[in-house]
Amino acid sequence: MRTDICEMFGIEYPIFAFTPSEKVAAAVSKAGGLGVLGCVRFNDAEDLDKTLTWLDENTDGKPYGVDVVMPMKIPTEGKAVDLKAMIPDEHISFVERTLQQLGVPPLPEGEGREGVLGWLHSVARSHVDVALAHRPVLIANALGSPPVDVIEQAHAAGVKVAALAGAAKHALSHVANGVDIIVAQGYEAGGHTGEIAGMVLTPEIVDAVGPDVPVLAAGGIGSGRQVAAAMALGAQGAWTGSLWLTVEEYDLSAGTGIRDALLKAGSGDTVRTRVYTGKPARLLKTKWTEAWEAEDAPTPLPMPLQNLLVADAHNRMNGGDNPDTISMPAGQIVGRTNEVRPVADVMADIIREYEETVDRLAKSGR
Amino acid sequence: MRTDICEMFGIEYPIFAFTPSEKVAAAVSKAGGLGVLGCVRFNDAEDLDKTLTWLDENTDGKPYGVDVVMPMKIPTEGKAVDLKAMIPDEHISFVERTLQQLGVPPLPEGEGREGVLGWLHSVARSHVDVALAHRPVLIANALGSPPVDVIEQAHAAGVKVAALAGAAKHALSHVANGVDIIVAQGYEAGGHTGEIAGMVLTPEIVDAVGPDVPVLAAGGIGSGRQVAAAMALGAQGAWTGSLWLTVEEYDLSAGTGIRDALLKAGSGDTVRTRVYTGKPARLLKTKWTEAWEAEDAPTPLPMPLQNLLVADAHNRMNGGDNPDTISMPAGQIVGRTNEVRPVADVMADIIREYEETVDRLAKSGR
Repeated sequence: MRTDICEMFGIEYPIFAFTPSEKVAAAVSKAGGLGVLGCVRFNDAEDLDKTLTWLDENTDGKPYGVDVVMPMKIPTEGKAVDLKAMIPDEHISFVERTLQQLGVPPLPEGEGREGVLGWLHSVARSHVDVALAHRPVLIANALGSPPVDVIEQAHAAGVKVAALAGAAKHALSHVANGVDIIVAQGYEAGGHTGEIAGMVLTPEIVDAVGPDVPVLAAGGIGSGRQVAAAMALGAQGAWTGSLWLTVEEYDLSAGTGIRDALLKAGSGDTVRTRVYTGKPARLLKTKWTEAWEAEDAPTPLPMPLQNLLVADAHNRMNGGDNPDTISMPAGQIVGRTNEVRPVADVMADIIREYEETVDRLAKSGR
Repeated sequence: MRTDICEMFGIEYPIFAFTPSEKVAAAVSKAGGLGVLGCVRFNDAEDLDKTLTWLDENTDGKPYGVDVVMPMKIPTEGKAVDLKAMIPDEHISFVERTLQQLGVPPLPEGEGREGVLGWLHSVARSHVDVALAHRPVLIANALGSPPVDVIEQAHAAGVKVAALAGAAKHALSHVANGVDIIVAQGYEAGGHTGEIAGMVLTPEIVDAVGPDVPVLAAGGIGSGRQVAAAMALGAQGAWTGSLWLTVEEYDLSAGTGIRDALLKAGSGDTVRTRVYTGKPARLLKTKWTEAWEAEDAPTPLPMPLQNLLVADAHNRMNGGDNPDTISMPAGQIVGRTNEVRPVADVMADIIREYEETVDRLAKSGR
């Protein structure tokens, strides 16, 4: 399973694992892949700093990466309180009415009022500044190319930059900005995603950027057969995410709702929708996403307003135990995460099945 | 590239080519794949009979298949004239207004009044009856499992039956009905398709039906890398379609509009919509599909009414030379069909690239 990108990062297997959990990231890195810590949940730079210090000390010296959410163009900015004034009353009352109809309890007094500020440009920049004071080998950006000065800042620190792309023209633009690695984010992937499936997108991006730019395939990858398919398509490895939401090491769920929803969902139980952030993203299909598809539902707001609108609702739903009323990004591979397993077992299965697959293809003759 | 399905049909490569053109089907079979003639365009049993006689005589004795469009449940039936009475005036006037706005000329007097009756159950049955008097090795059904008596009729004639499936539960139901081969039709595929992308769907169906039922991967496949990916995912071969719409042998286009649209389209220039038949199908994105997405557009009718509604419009648009006003099923692989080439060259490239890919994977080490 070795490709050039393994040399680039000093890793054994080209399995990149995006995860909001530092425990999971550390376990993947220790198992020979590259754990990539999602930073969007850190409103407070000091929290991220502490978490990265923990990662520095708990990966047995193995490399890790970080993932930020940063638009190339600087969007409407401001404190949460200013932005909230831009949210129409119709949207606020729809959210409140929906939560009532779905029986979602309120948060305890004083909790969750701030929302997730990682979607704001200034906060994402602070994530980069904090990260570069630690020892990540990679900064990935979920929204495509970061601003050029951020890329230069990373390069000056000896850190590679990866950017997600859902179309070949975006990949080319990222490379022109200085991005080192393209993550070909297929339609089947969780979170922000485009409409072109990985089977078509990966080779298209590989051919567009040429042999000097490594491409990782993202979307629908959770097994050795799928890693082999991604590499057959020309990717140097796999970018995975949803796969790691149900591992034993994952410890971020306040209630049991999210984990139960992930464990029971089939591959058809996701939906690509603008309700999470304002940009199309793949989420688990739940009563919450269905409510937004009803005829009386308002149109989701643009980023970053939509996430501010629903941030409290997310906290109320996702802290609970009801798998039918959560709001959770997940890709179509969620149909395969049906039990809680340790990271090391998931990795070992991928590697074994990859080897079997390559042997099978070689034996099927030429 | 040999798998068990090659033995089953006596073919050299497990490349199945769905095409409405007998010339293309014959060329694929002669090149070592299996040409599969789409029958839906034949309103007249005698025409199909003649075409299959031509195929019998022009494939150098190589096998070929046929493809019908037959729902498992027998739908509302009747002559076209009865069904047309069920179409709301609003829909008829929308179609007429749209064609006017798009500047689509009327058909010559007396042409194209009948629509495509192959969508009707009785006509699809006549296709099966006619086909079995010839020597197809395979009857495929684009709408899933055919009725059980049709499967038995095929088996009695020594003909295998394939059915498209967009979800594992549908594949299991097809197998329970007696279907021999499952075509895993991914989201990226042209024509009728579901929402699960091939990267996830193919291994899911392979695992669901077990090792005794061959699975062909469909959607987004047009190169050797993609065939290798499909086989890595566990498929015994590839089901292809859009790839063959721009080959030299294709001779069904009345005007230049369709071919020009296919040649210029990128992978992002398709859309999954109900406007073609009433069921979700992937088409080229054109001014016609856009018109149906406008706020004033009516909701598409159920099958078979929608196709009757738009049949004349299709004839008017698709006979012309304007690539922006056509209605044409195509998958996301259309981004790669950018020149007119002979079938033999397309096949040779697939086989060469497949071999290179398997070698590359083997060499990337274990």
